[in-house]
Amino acid sequence: MSYTASVVGASGFAGGELCRLLVDHPAIELVQATSRGKENRTLGHVHPNLRDVDLRFSSPEELASVDLLFAATPHGVSMAEIDRFQDAADTVVDLSADFRLPDVGPYEEYYDGHSRPELLESAVYGLPEFNREALPGADLVAVGGCNATASILGLLPLVGDVLAGDERVVVDVKVGSSEGGTGGGEAASHPERSGVVRPYAPTGHRHEAEIAAYLGLDVAFSAHAVDMVRGASATCHVFPDGPVSKADLWEIYRDSYEDEPFVDLVAGGSGVYRYPEPKTVAGTNRAEVGFALDPGSERLVVVSAIDNVMKGAAGQAVQAANVALGVEETAGLDARGLHPVGSP
Amino acid sequence: MSYTASVVGASGFAGGELCRLLVDHPAIELVQATSRGKENRTLGHVHPNLRDVDLRFSSPEELASVDLLFAATPHGVSMAEIDRFQDAADTVVDLSADFRLPDVGPYEEYYDGHSRPELLESAVYGLPEFNREALPGADLVAVGGCNATASILGLLPLVGDVLAGDERVVVDVKVGSSEGGTGGGEAASHPERSGVVRPYAPTGHRHEAEIAAYLGLDVAFSAHAVDMVRGASATCHVFPDGPVSKADLWEIYRDSYEDEPFVDLVAGGSGVYRYPEPKTVAGTNRAEVGFALDPGSERLVVVSAIDNVMKGAAGQAVQAANVALGVEETAGLDARGLHPVGSP
Amino acid sequence: MSYTASVVGASGFAGGELCRLLVDHPAIELVQATSRGKENRTLGHVHPNLRDVDLRFSSPEELASVDLLFAATPHGVSMAEIDRFQDAADTVVDLSADFRLPDVGPYEEYYDGHSRPELLESAVYGLPEFNREALPGADLVAVGGCNATASILGLLPLVGDVLAGDERVVVDVKVGSSEGGTGGGEAASHPERSGVVRPYAPTGHRHEAEIAAYLGLDVAFSAHAVDMVRGASATCHVFPDGPVSKADLWEIYRDSYEDEPFVDLVAGGSGVYRYPEPKTVAGTNRAEVGFALDPGSERLVVVSAIDNVMKGAAGQAVQAANVALGVEETAGLDARGLHPVGSP
Amino acid sequence: MSYTASVVGASGFAGGELCRLLVDHPAIELVQATSRGKENRTLGHVHPNLRDVDLRFSSPEELASVDLLFAATPHGVSMAEIDRFQDAADTVVDLSADFRLPDVGPYEEYYDGHSRPELLESAVYGLPEFNREALPGADLVAVGGCNATASILGLLPLVGDVLAGDERVVVDVKVGSSEGGTGGGEAASHPERSGVVRPYAPTGHRHEAEIAAYLGLDVAFSAHAVDMVRGASATCHVFPDGPVSKADLWEIYRDSYEDEPFVDLVAGGSGVYRYPEPKTVAGTNRAEVGFALDPGSERLVVVSAIDNVMKGAAGQAVQAANVALGVEETAGLDARGLHPVGSP
Repeated sequence: MSYTASVVGASGFAGGELCRLLVDHPAIELVQATSRGKENRTLGHVHPNLRDVDLRFSSPEELASVDLLFAATPHGVSMAEIDRFQDAADTVVDLSADFRLPDVGPYEEYYDGHSRPELLESAVYGLPEFNREALPGADLVAVGGCNATASILGLLPLVGDVLAGDERVVVDVKVGSSEGGTGGGEAASHPERSGVVRPYAPTGHRHEAEIAAYLGLDVAFSAHAVDMVRGASATCHVFPDGPVSKADLWEIYRDSYEDEPFVDLVAGGSGVYRYPEPKTVAGTNRAEVGFALDPGSERLVVVSAIDNVMKGAAGQAVQAANVALGVEETAGLDARGLHPVGSP
Repeated sequence: MSYTASVVGASGFAGGELCRLLVDHPAIELVQATSRGKENRTLGHVHPNLRDVDLRFSSPEELASVDLLFAATPHGVSMAEIDRFQDAADTVVDLSADFRLPDVGPYEEYYDGHSRPELLESAVYGLPEFNREALPGADLVAVGGCNATASILGLLPLVGDVLAGDERVVVDVKVGSSEGGTGGGEAASHPERSGVVRPYAPTGHRHEAEIAAYLGLDVAFSAHAVDMVRGASATCHVFPDGPVSKADLWEIYRDSYEDEPFVDLVAGGSGVYRYPEPKTVAGTNRAEVGFALDPGSERLVVVSAIDNVMKGAAGQAVQAANVALGVEETAGLDARGLHPVGSP
Repeated sequence: MSYTASVVGASGFAGGELCRLLVDHPAIELVQATSRGKENRTLGHVHPNLRDVDLRFSSPEELASVDLLFAATPHGVSMAEIDRFQDAADTVVDLSADFRLPDVGPYEEYYDGHSRPELLESAVYGLPEFNREALPGADLVAVGGCNATASILGLLPLVGDVLAGDERVVVDVKVGSSEGGTGGGEAASHPERSGVVRPYAPTGHRHEAEIAAYLGLDVAFSAHAVDMVRGASATCHVFPDGPVSKADLWEIYRDSYEDEPFVDLVAGGSGVYRYPEPKTVAGTNRAEVGFALDPGSERLVVVSAIDNVMKGAAGQAVQAANVALGVEETAGLDARGLHPVGSP
Repeated sequence: MSYTASVVGASGFAGGELCRLLVDHPAIELVQATSRGKENRTLGHVHPNLRDVDLRFSSPEELASVDLLFAATPHGVSMAEIDRFQDAADTVVDLSADFRLPDVGPYEEYYDGHSRPELLESAVYGLPEFNREALPGADLVAVGGCNATASILGLLPLVGDVLAGDERVVVDVKVGSSEGGTGGGEAASHPERSGVVRPYAPTGHRHEAEIAAYLGLDVAFSAHAVDMVRGASATCHVFPDGPVSKADLWEIYRDSYEDEPFVDLVAGGSGVYRYPEPKTVAGTNRAEVGFALDPGSERLVVVSAIDNVMKGAAGQAVQAANVALGVEETAGLDARGLHPVGSP
């Protein structure tokens, strides 16, 4: 059994990654990849890892009729084009923020408002570790954002247990340059972007809204650009109201994640790799989650690491689509990380 | 007028940087550089930027009699050798943690205790922006640690004004590989250390004690290794008890730093470089400090950036020595940063 | 049908990569992984990408009886241990240089001599694009070296056609830090190794002998360390005796490589990726080969790029083993590269 | 005695570096810095290391009357504007290629021709180690190009001695991303440019013409982009007609360079830094030159390393201007490199 799929916005980084995953997917067949600037170019012209793929970018104006449409377009495009997308496909998996939030409020606070608020309620948030059961049969899946995914995977096990919701939580995120997309620009040029520890969003990051919406936590979020291409690492500083032990934490996190196919607990021990690191999950759909306890300040530090292009975008989109379609959740997503590896 | 100086531990990174600064210093003459493994090698054998310097490493066993002795040795050496150091020099400037803390308590909590606690009271902490007036004539200067310096420079203006001392402060630090020193080891090797966002001290970092001792703040501190060689960037998440405006902050920070020769306020504006970044101060003794205000969560985010080898070690040592000797504070420290610059 | 395999030297980079490939290999089962320093540790303790593998390092003193033994040990070990290796396994695949050269001469010139010269004749060089037909049934396979593989893949199509053997060929290679292995040491530490263009072997590189032995070319070889972890890129400057056109070259290279499963021709065109680049093949067993013609100086520039840990070591070892065993040549080696990707 | 100077094209990398050097220059005063896109912005808006400089970019349309005008504009601008530049200044120092070559021929072969060929004869090439004596009093100085400077400094001592001019010379260059300038574009964006070994000009590089013009050598030149921001490293593979010994080479290179203030010989020895490396000269006007001899192939390998923004552009421009004006040649250029240092 095979489903047909198209990728809209396939010349971008997330779009290219979707193509990479789909051309090797056992149950989904990529039939169309659109790009507004690279029409008629081969996929390999933009994405050198796809040189063997016999497919050219087509215009987004003419969408093939498919089972699944992945929209990997900039924020705002999906809400403008959603009718066309839904006409073309039974299931739309949107990687933008356009349908991620359940209410229109935060769109007015953090974005430029919303033109299709009536669709927000039916859109299903696509972060299977959070709401796997809501995905089967969904028409419109809004894939969790990269930094929000890293944060939510770190904090989710604590909610309702260690965290009641009104505690202070600081999330300090470090991300790679691929989060900025292909657009480039002066700040993204190699001479300017190399070697930075750049607080590009010390306050006011949009993913605060996503974390608040799904975890019910009012996190204080800051994002820093660091020198890597792929990767998002979230350090969550949590101050529980009551005492919590390391044994409690292991139990809580194991309960949450021991059956999760894509989440690894990495918390201490010896060796070089003792806590989550984005480079060990680069190119994979995996998330590493770990924690440390600071008795002095009664603080719990949770760290999680993902590849922002994969578990933070294309990988998670395929994972969510697999669940939505009833395909094996890990199908097409079994890549293992590398060691040694530099700054993927 | 010229003072003579020796550097003990000169084959290390901070020791080499001290040599670099001293050979070009207008009022201090480098007469000895010791190393326990590189005796009789030229300075340039280890430090390629010092190939033109006509000086060889000597054994630390025979110390020249000098005005100033800089100790750039691992923690523990200075407390064992302090009598020899003080016999050899009128002023000892110690870059290790051995005499940084005013009380023995934290040495028992964070370190392996202290063998010369009676000297702690008379040692002068060497962070001129904090206690410039205590430095002139000091016999023993204990230079502020790199991460502590970054944190203290960020938070100092707030203490007693915005911060009473019992507020929650989270300090999330990102540092370069030179903080690990020359020792190397598996975790420091290029294949393992490249591209990391590695939470090497999520809790329990020793510089917590230094910040607590001098700012009276019980900070929750976490340190991450990122892919750069030089640099320390501290993001301080501060939750003031009462309201604070951006105008207040500008006034507070300008009052503190407008006359400081080595501190720049970098807070917002347009362009690529809107907040402090370690790469813009690499190779210099400068600190950049900036802030952003998060109305939603009533959080103040302070960011500061230094070169850990300079303002976090050798540069600050020379600055403190200049003040201690009554030399112009900026002597030998007027290097300007580079643009563009990668990951210095 | 499944073969059993052991990896000797499994805590090194090539050894770890062999484990990674074998645990997911459809026809080979990894039953033993030895390490002289990490005995009883899990594979995941050293290689974080193998945390899910339920296997611990064992001592190399007790070798399991297997079909295939991969030796990923430093040069010199295999010639000392070859009898034990051959007692333990039907087929030994050696990744060191110990049996790569057909004659003892170069071992005396470039290495420290050879203790088992009588085995050199029967050892089969493991570079399938060069001598695929010699591999089936081999007892002892000596896998081609990383830099030699990159060079040979670039030059092989020219030999006997454009190159008679006495022309001047300069091979200028750039390699990543993983070539230095796990040993580390001062030069390999991140602060020293970052950002280099370090001519670590401007002359006298051992792989000259390997290229001479198999291509019959007396190349002038230089190797530079650059800032990446994985990758080897060879730029071969060739001065043919007679005229050669771009059309000739395309024909020559297509004839050689169009049926090769792991070689891609990348020669010009438009876009960002116009010539071979190691980062596009990182994590894969692929080689990219391309060329440019310089009419003015009658020079042909051939560029080839591989992942030194894969096509330059573990990947090629598995490829050669597949051929030796009669398994599908690409089995276990179908990983696709990433885009975007930083410095893997 | 102080000279006034303006920098045209001051928002670029070389232009910014000129400003950095001039604001701290003891004998030159920067009075104007122009930019076509950043008019009225402070220098510090673009160049964060110049935040303390009280000067704003002005339009290039109104040039101040100065002693010295540095043109750091793209190729083609200077030949179009040379009359205006010469009206505004007694001495024009041009950093572009527009007046570098003595004849119009190569402009027709490698560039888009030349609109002011009558000026080529009087323009003085600005590479003081090559033609110091021609610079005093020059009206128009054409500063040597970055890759050509690295190559010429490596090969110059050999010309007429070891090299008669008809020998085969291969120059394989590795450069940092700052050579691409501020323009950016897709290939220069951090995700695409990171971690590359990219043969961006395997053949046909324009600096071949410059090397041919001044050294009389027909070099086979290839340029590769590698992962650093500043730096150019040239590996010159030279095949002398007759025998040459290491002692000969030391004598030849010492004769050429022992009195040169900016050239260091780095050739072998022990330690980590045994050959020229661009990172050790980053931020300085220094060049490192070294060599190795390959008896087997009768090849001489010469390596030279510079900072392309400094000795390859702005630093060399100031050096040439110093000589042209009769100022101390090293004035404003005494910066020392750093150790450790990453990828500046």
